[in-house]
Amino acid sequence: MPEFLELLPPPEAIIRWMAHLPAPRPETESLDTFTALGRVTAGAIASPEALPAFPRSTVDGFAVIARDTYGASDSLPAYLTLVGEVPMGRQPDFKLQPAQAALIYTGGMLPEGADAVVMLEYTQQSKPGEIEVLRSSAAGENILKTGEDVAPGQIIVPAGVRLRPAEIGGLLALGITQVSVAVRPRIGIISSGDEIVVPQARPSAGQVRDINSYSLGALVEQAGGKPAFYGIIPDKRQALQQTLQTALDECEAVIVTAGSSASTRDLTAEVIQNLGAPGVLVHGVNLRPGKPTILAVCNGKAVVGLPGNPVSALVVAGIFATPLVEHLLGLTNPRPKPTLVASLTINLASQAGREDYVPVTLLPGPQGYLAEPIFYKSNLIFSLARADGLVKIPSAATGLSAGDQVTVTLL
Amino acid sequence: MPEFLELLPPPEAIIRWMAHLPAPRPETESLDTFTALGRVTAGAIASPEALPAFPRSTVDGFAVIARDTYGASDSLPAYLTLVGEVPMGRQPDFKLQPAQAALIYTGGMLPEGADAVVMLEYTQQSKPGEIEVLRSSAAGENILKTGEDVAPGQIIVPAGVRLRPAEIGGLLALGITQVSVAVRPRIGIISSGDEIVVPQARPSAGQVRDINSYSLGALVEQAGGKPAFYGIIPDKRQALQQTLQTALDECEAVIVTAGSSASTRDLTAEVIQNLGAPGVLVHGVNLRPGKPTILAVCNGKAVVGLPGNPVSALVVAGIFATPLVEHLLGLTNPRPKPTLVASLTINLASQAGREDYVPVTLLPGPQGYLAEPIFYKSNLIFSLARADGLVKIPSAATGLSAGDQVTVTLL
Repeated sequence: MPEFLELLPPPEAIIRWMAHLPAPRPETESLDTFTALGRVTAGAIASPEALPAFPRSTVDGFAVIARDTYGASDSLPAYLTLVGEVPMGRQPDFKLQPAQAALIYTGGMLPEGADAVVMLEYTQQSKPGEIEVLRSSAAGENILKTGEDVAPGQIIVPAGVRLRPAEIGGLLALGITQVSVAVRPRIGIISSGDEIVVPQARPSAGQVRDINSYSLGALVEQAGGKPAFYGIIPDKRQALQQTLQTALDECEAVIVTAGSSASTRDLTAEVIQNLGAPGVLVHGVNLRPGKPTILAVCNGKAVVGLPGNPVSALVVAGIFATPLVEHLLGLTNPRPKPTLVASLTINLASQAGREDYVPVTLLPGPQGYLAEPIFYKSNLIFSLARADGLVKIPSAATGLSAGDQVTVTLL
Repeated sequence: MPEFLELLPPPEAIIRWMAHLPAPRPETESLDTFTALGRVTAGAIASPEALPAFPRSTVDGFAVIARDTYGASDSLPAYLTLVGEVPMGRQPDFKLQPAQAALIYTGGMLPEGADAVVMLEYTQQSKPGEIEVLRSSAAGENILKTGEDVAPGQIIVPAGVRLRPAEIGGLLALGITQVSVAVRPRIGIISSGDEIVVPQARPSAGQVRDINSYSLGALVEQAGGKPAFYGIIPDKRQALQQTLQTALDECEAVIVTAGSSASTRDLTAEVIQNLGAPGVLVHGVNLRPGKPTILAVCNGKAVVGLPGNPVSALVVAGIFATPLVEHLLGLTNPRPKPTLVASLTINLASQAGREDYVPVTLLPGPQGYLAEPIFYKSNLIFSLARADGLVKIPSAATGLSAGDQVTVTLL
């Protein structure tokens, strides 16, 4: 398993890797709908009933029979007998006969016989018990018909959709108070490196605190997964093999950050290769930062080997681990990812064939945002903490020019 | 308090309203840093130490004294004595003397005396105990100096910042395992309307289930607040007044959705006006949907009156309630809001002076996304559940044309 025999472009790397993953079959759990914000539907949800369940007025006005108003105008009003007022929240206890009208409020139930509502401002009342309609009204005007929003049996939320406030409200409007969602997939997270100590420790000279477990754990959580921490493992084959095996047994996928040197990265790849077939599928991606990325599938479960450098690890996790978590959640209907268009402040060079991600700060400019690249040496986590997002230099480009409109993925 | 004496543009409405809100003084709580994703920092956080805490190599190679390599080339290598290997995670137990070199890995601690690292590929080893350096190296090359990422005492995360994975990782890199964040503000939510029943109920003819409590609760949660539900209140002055007063006493702000008819909206405005000075500041916004919006401050607390129509309520809450929650959190350093640029598929008309929000579906197009407007009658919640986002037609425009590049705010 020599390193970097070939450097795959990121999109091809994803395809080669994911092709070996089994179709997602997430465990499901039933939740109170109003606590399910951000969760992913486990199956398609059909409406048990029509919405609205009865014809409703969309304005304040008078329920009428439309043909009684044909030809009505300011100079030639239609005179209708006022027979009552529709009470909110109750079925009217009268039926509209020709040449009759009833006062109705927005959301009120249309009385039987009526087929339109005339807005208050197109009527006047000159004597009690009668209204004048000053405008012609068409059948269906200013009303919602039964089932106009949703028909009974209609799929209202497909499977594999992340629930937003609008879906939560819509489900409850139909009385769907329980919803079946994918259980958050457990993602094992392992940091390896002889120099790494826990954040609680006071590092000796030569030691550094673990960053990756926590930044990657937060990213997994953001994507909808549940991080499971397996601690810091020294760069020793047996310890690494054992912990990886345990994590793979207990989780639905594993992310391991390798030590930073080439030899420890090779060790990580070898250990992953031993976890099960087909093993390592991608070792080396034409990407900066993140060249030494490892993508594997072992006995039906994904294993991701990330560079130990915390900046690379977090950028690459956004590219490969986020889609992995979404795959495991069964998120088959993802919404478009939000981005932001900004104007680049300086030229950025790149290598043709390589995809580059450059951290940027966004500043308000005369026409929208300016994207100001942050230059940093490898390994400086605060270069990312200072950034608002990442600008991608596509692999086809040899760079970007100052003033170019660029798409910024927010961190 | 007559309705709609003047219709304010949304930006002016926000300014007039927020000007009467006291400066945020959120309660704070201390959290384990790795559980603080998405929370807002209560104060500026300064680094207790330097990062890195010792000079580190950023590559695999040989630690050298740069001037020993001056002028070195393939034809005229610099010959250096190999004195050892830097162990990962420990301080080297030797000091580099002139004409000496030591093997070092990425992340290793630079030995005393060394001031640069030569990459492995620019060296060769022809006899044991000696290396040939084939390239000139400059002092500082391939090393991170102590404090190069962060100096002791430096502010690493300002106050009022929402924590992302990068900040979580950065804080833990410095051993900051506890972080002080704003307590989620409690936002009271009240639905009013004689026709509204709880989602668990089987509505009779004329009744509809409560949507707004839950869609707005989810939105508040998304913004970082904690919804507190005060149930469904009939359109009766005393009941509404009492519940609003209780919610205002117990929460940091209150959102009430009014009944849908003009008279119940007027009632809501009157009741809010009675809650305390200065009372209703905005009643009517030049906005579609959402004209009958009420913005108030009563005894130092914000009260928002939203239209009862669930589509309007959710759209307007995104415009006014989200910034309110962020204000209460003390989010003084908000990141730019993600959006998405898409090409409009058809012409959209609008009224000059009015800000319109049109729900759209995003479809992949030949060059980026296409935004396809969803036409809907008032009150159809699933028109929003089917939408990916909202296109804003600015108040200065009288419409947008097919093919226009529009900015879509994702729902």
